[in-house]
Amino acid sequence: MKINKYEDISQIDREAKKDYIDRHSAFVHCEASAKKGEKFKVKVKVGDEYMHPYDTDHYIAWVQLWNGEKMLAQGTFVEGALGNAPNNLEVDFYIVPTKNMKLMAHAFCTKHGLWQSEEVSVEVTE
Amino acid sequence: MKINKYEDISQIDREAKKDYIDRHSAFVHCEASAKKGEKFKVKVKVGDEYMHPYDTDHYIAWVQLWNGEKMLAQGTFVEGALGNAPNNLEVDFYIVPTKNMKLMAHAFCTKHGLWQSEEVSVEVTE
Amino acid sequence: MKINKYEDISQIDREAKKDYIDRHSAFVHCEASAKKGEKFKVKVKVGDEYMHPYDTDHYIAWVQLWNGEKMLAQGTFVEGALGNAPNNLEVDFYIVPTKNMKLMAHAFCTKHGLWQSEEVSVEVTE
Amino acid sequence: MKINKYEDISQIDREAKKDYIDRHSAFVHCEASAKKGEKFKVKVKVGDEYMHPYDTDHYIAWVQLWNGEKMLAQGTFVEGALGNAPNNLEVDFYIVPTKNMKLMAHAFCTKHGLWQSEEVSVEVTE
Repeated sequence: MKINKYEDISQIDREAKKDYIDRHSAFVHCEASAKKGEKFKVKVKVGDEYMHPYDTDHYIAWVQLWNGEKMLAQGTFVEGALGNAPNNLEVDFYIVPTKNMKLMAHAFCTKHGLWQSEEVSVEVTE
Repeated sequence: MKINKYEDISQIDREAKKDYIDRHSAFVHCEASAKKGEKFKVKVKVGDEYMHPYDTDHYIAWVQLWNGEKMLAQGTFVEGALGNAPNNLEVDFYIVPTKNMKLMAHAFCTKHGLWQSEEVSVEVTE
Repeated sequence: MKINKYEDISQIDREAKKDYIDRHSAFVHCEASAKKGEKFKVKVKVGDEYMHPYDTDHYIAWVQLWNGEKMLAQGTFVEGALGNAPNNLEVDFYIVPTKNMKLMAHAFCTKHGLWQSEEVSVEVTE
Repeated sequence: MKINKYEDISQIDREAKKDYIDRHSAFVHCEASAKKGEKFKVKVKVGDEYMHPYDTDHYIAWVQLWNGEKMLAQGTFVEGALGNAPNNLEVDFYIVPTKNMKLMAHAFCTKHGLWQSEEVSVEVTE
């Protein structure tokens, strides 16, 4: 199965393509280091400069937070949660790390499939 | 089906019962008012003063955020996300309100069933 | 929170009300007895004589199978899975019982909230 | 992210490796053809000849059914649903096709990551 990967939109000329890629891309936002055994906030957000539309047959259904090969948490949204208007889906998961992590997010668009963020390394110290 | 409701633990004498109720109770934390059509952060957290254990057959599997009779979003956690240690599961959903809301959270414990928070009213203005 | 319960529609006169109740009601279909430790098929189906519509803001988002106070499994459907036409959402969960069960299903309609099936007793023998 | 793909275990010599691959592999079982607009049963099953263990930190948390790049449905299981014993997780989704499909299943193991089935083509006729 094809998994769409993030592309740096500053390198893309065509406006429609910039918009298409940005609004589907999942992003992981968090600190670069964490304390072992303590709560650590990780924001997963879809899109940065452009918003994803909300249509009957076209919406972001869920995002997942992964650490390497391991899924940690999933956020599922239903109709109405984001005002049924263009949006940047956003959720903060509070996880408790035990060792260094390589975080990544997945976002699923009902029309354009699965999108994978860049990997974010987090150093976990005692 | 029984849905466990929040009880004010300051009114409970027995320590074990305080702990049992608090660590299972879902809480909604958010501002009292929001702007129509703008992102609004809602924290769902399980437990306040006491932590929930993490055991093979005993963990909080998911939380849901509801507005009245309508579910808005669900956060599902898997093994490892919270360090496999006692914890207070926590997730922030960013929703976009269109009118006044009555927010409520559900938390599901694999051993002790479904727990429902108190209702939190949010006034939504233009 | 209000949980809508099944009503026997043969006792209801008004056609629109029969339709409303039937198309939202979750039903558990399974054998009356099971063998301990062996796979056991449980069908969860929404509606019996009437189909639920599929609209932008009005669809069955998920069903859950419960044994007493304990959730066993959840089936979540996204746009397109049921042809975006009126339907009776249906899923078979294969569970492995260890003792007598009281099965129940929940169905969530994005417009009309949570619906709970009647309870089905299953005797589990060695 | 690595997605583990099905391998034909009859071509593998080492027993432990056969077991490892088989018990994690998702399989799609269904008819080769379907009628447009009519319900169509699709079984998703994890493993064929070998069972997956059930341990605190090692279980199959969910399966998803995909049609090409599009997810149709997800089945999530919690502790206790499969007797907390070795098992082959199994769920039947009833979908309503509108055109030819390429079905595929994903299974997520909390220890060994994401596993993808072979693709199954279904011809959908009027």
